[in-house]
Amino acid sequence: MKVSIIYPASEKHIVKHSAQHRYMVDESAERYKNITLPHLEQEQLSLEWLYNVLEHRKEKERILYEDPCDENGFILLPDLKWDGKTVEQLYLLALVRRRDIRSLRDLTPAHLALLRNVQARGIAAIEERYGIGASQLRIYLHYQPTFYHLHMHFTYLRYDPPGTNCEKAHLLSTVINNIELLGDYYQRATLSYALKETDKLCAKFIASESEEPAAKRTKTDIDPSQ
Amino acid sequence: MKVSIIYPASEKHIVKHSAQHRYMVDESAERYKNITLPHLEQEQLSLEWLYNVLEHRKEKERILYEDPCDENGFILLPDLKWDGKTVEQLYLLALVRRRDIRSLRDLTPAHLALLRNVQARGIAAIEERYGIGASQLRIYLHYQPTFYHLHMHFTYLRYDPPGTNCEKAHLLSTVINNIELLGDYYQRATLSYALKETDKLCAKFIASESEEPAAKRTKTDIDPSQ
Repeated sequence: MKVSIIYPASEKHIVKHSAQHRYMVDESAERYKNITLPHLEQEQLSLEWLYNVLEHRKEKERILYEDPCDENGFILLPDLKWDGKTVEQLYLLALVRRRDIRSLRDLTPAHLALLRNVQARGIAAIEERYGIGASQLRIYLHYQPTFYHLHMHFTYLRYDPPGTNCEKAHLLSTVINNIELLGDYYQRATLSYALKETDKLCAKFIASESEEPAAKRTKTDIDPSQ
Repeated sequence: MKVSIIYPASEKHIVKHSAQHRYMVDESAERYKNITLPHLEQEQLSLEWLYNVLEHRKEKERILYEDPCDENGFILLPDLKWDGKTVEQLYLLALVRRRDIRSLRDLTPAHLALLRNVQARGIAAIEERYGIGASQLRIYLHYQPTFYHLHMHFTYLRYDPPGTNCEKAHLLSTVINNIELLGDYYQRATLSYALKETDKLCAKFIASESEEPAAKRTKTDIDPSQ
């Protein structure tokens, strides 16, 4: 049995790890602007721990690979859920150096070089250290992410950790391709995801449902009689 | 413990249920045309069982909902993996009536009405019968699918059956939105998915890697030194 201990645990941590109902949300570009963005600007947790890692003030010994370039650089290190040894459960995170990209929603063609750099160098570093090649890796972003500073997950394809499901994980290869196909894809797309009922963002979406005109409600905007 | 018995089991069934390595494949439009499409035209299993369901020759009593319209019609029935009773594990399949859509790859704006119809009427039927609303459902397509006749999966959001991960499942809401954003999205996109090593398609992709010029190899086409 593996037990994870979180100490100190904030209220957000406690809520995150309790069993609860989830709700699917269809986040249009408009809803992102009117609901999600104001919410995350208001509720964002401090990213000090992350800046400490990027600036080598903490966890320097855990870094597997670093590209120090300001624009396309990143740090690759084991996810806190991984013991760093059991290759069958390989789980690493890439934290980009840039501080101006909150999530998928901010990505544009200007970031393609960064995304491709993380993909190629992350793969190469993992292959060198663990002997696991690109074809054995699942590389993805979460939306919504746990924290709003762009990062990517690298997990072993044979391992199914939580957070790899289609209502949360977006393959990096798909993200890159979407932007190649349509430069403003992530500014225009409706992104669907599941929110826990205790998430404040969930409450805001539910509240907005009753305010929006019926024609704009995502789940009810398709009239089968038509 | 729940045991599924498949009888008679074809070689394909045996291979499908054995533990095995998987490989990530990035299927560009070109690779779909040159590798996947010829493969599935050659290897396609008979769809007679499915046509029997659509024509009411079999399993008529299992149908939860039917829209008999030729163009946008479909049949909704419990997936064979679901007992049809335990709501916590709800799993239904929508089989479209049209026989000319193999998979995601064939979808164009001409199919938007069909996709929206399945979404809206499928949700309504499930809500009426099981009391589970749209916000509690995960509605998705598989790519690659198990059989090449367009169908959609409806599962309870709180339940995580196999096949909901980001390297296999595509949310119907995302599929609809992608086509709305870019009419020929599914003819142009690079779609990534995991193949089992015993899958003949996997062998064809691996063989093609050594034939394609290096510049076209998906996993190696990004040179970190650039």
